[in-house]
Amino acid sequence: MTVAIATLHEQVSAWLKASRQRIYRELQAPLTVATKSGRTDLVTNVDRANQRFLISQIHAAYPQAHIEGEEGRQAKLDRLAGLVFFVDPIDGTMNFVKQRANFAVMIGVYIDGAPLYGAILDVARDELITGGPNWPLQLNDRPLPTPADLALADGLIGVNGHMLIRNGVHVADVALKSAGPRLIGSAGMEFIAVALGQQVGYVSYLQPWDVAPGLAIGANFGLQVTRPDASAIDLLEPGIVVAAMPKAHAEIIDLMQG
Amino acid sequence: MTVAIATLHEQVSAWLKASRQRIYRELQAPLTVATKSGRTDLVTNVDRANQRFLISQIHAAYPQAHIEGEEGRQAKLDRLAGLVFFVDPIDGTMNFVKQRANFAVMIGVYIDGAPLYGAILDVARDELITGGPNWPLQLNDRPLPTPADLALADGLIGVNGHMLIRNGVHVADVALKSAGPRLIGSAGMEFIAVALGQQVGYVSYLQPWDVAPGLAIGANFGLQVTRPDASAIDLLEPGIVVAAMPKAHAEIIDLMQG
Repeated sequence: MTVAIATLHEQVSAWLKASRQRIYRELQAPLTVATKSGRTDLVTNVDRANQRFLISQIHAAYPQAHIEGEEGRQAKLDRLAGLVFFVDPIDGTMNFVKQRANFAVMIGVYIDGAPLYGAILDVARDELITGGPNWPLQLNDRPLPTPADLALADGLIGVNGHMLIRNGVHVADVALKSAGPRLIGSAGMEFIAVALGQQVGYVSYLQPWDVAPGLAIGANFGLQVTRPDASAIDLLEPGIVVAAMPKAHAEIIDLMQG
Repeated sequence: MTVAIATLHEQVSAWLKASRQRIYRELQAPLTVATKSGRTDLVTNVDRANQRFLISQIHAAYPQAHIEGEEGRQAKLDRLAGLVFFVDPIDGTMNFVKQRANFAVMIGVYIDGAPLYGAILDVARDELITGGPNWPLQLNDRPLPTPADLALADGLIGVNGHMLIRNGVHVADVALKSAGPRLIGSAGMEFIAVALGQQVGYVSYLQPWDVAPGLAIGANFGLQVTRPDASAIDLLEPGIVVAAMPKAHAEIIDLMQG
């Protein structure tokens, strides 16, 4: 299978920009908020409407694609075969509800399990980060410098609040060895911070659609994205993700084994 | 002593906007970074230059004013008498150095220890938040709505990383009862998030110039700003600050006594 990445980039960029307009239009009416797995795991009517929109666009342009998100229906073994779109219609729904900022719309595109392209839109700032193994790291179509490969002590680290509080997989130890922990509340926004060189890494418990876009973008600039034991991410399972530039990643993995 | 607040607002706004231009101009040369109390407590040549600039402006406009920051020379008992300016030339210096975003320039103005006016400039976004007991809450001179008085469970809470990790004064317990902790790494940016209604509160260990501007702005909209035992802030001493809307503040203080 071949996909023209330049065409894909144009299409995905247009869908994400259209999502942004749709989100702000829908925000003119009251938001309907429901909980999913717990009181802080939210979904809104806007998440759902935007997922329907993105899926319809993907299906129209790539009828053969599988879409991972709430839609997965195939047997697990087959689901990474061929062209796969990971879709997060609103990442950081709590921030969307409480802040109207610090949330993202994002898409990751894979072929036979290998990253092809990722796109994350910081909706409030209207900043679109895109990249892939063979697609440049860009902010709104302008090239970005490669993030510096800093030691952990020289970089800020994005963390998950529960893991920091409980020192899960030594995340608190990682934070204390870093230049400081930061906590935005959206995986997409954390991956943007890493791509901009504002954070040297990010550690959290993530669903496949939380990690797939950032992993694909990071493949452009050497971002290491693994489980805490340094094994590869299975993009069909949730789990702890360690995403960091190489030097810091090695230090984090060492601390997590300690 | 009387100070015309409208005049003060115009002056402080102009100084902060000028600070922003000076900061970006100075960033065209390499940054000189030094540590203060520890490896993550930074100061740069730009912090120092901007402090000199702000102090010169304040002295020219208000020759009788005391300035709290690095300049305090008077005996402690006298230092809150009369007109006092608290100045933070770059708040969130680590973010300034590592991110070039999420840092603030801020000023709090007090008369005989009582808040008169506060101003916090989010430099990267060019957003100036101003307010006081008798001055409206504004963003770039446009009125802002009063933040909602949410229960802790319904609001995001800004926290200090070390206190969250160590559960100092039960901050981790507060975070777990909230809608989620957030960690920006700048007191000014946290107070802005509270003023915008994006967070219901903020708990950290702060210097006087970290808290004075936000306390003055918050006096406009009922923000409660105290120590963990609910006592008033002594603006000449560093210490733990609990800043939150009334309902959440009461819940936080209860948890901290538990």
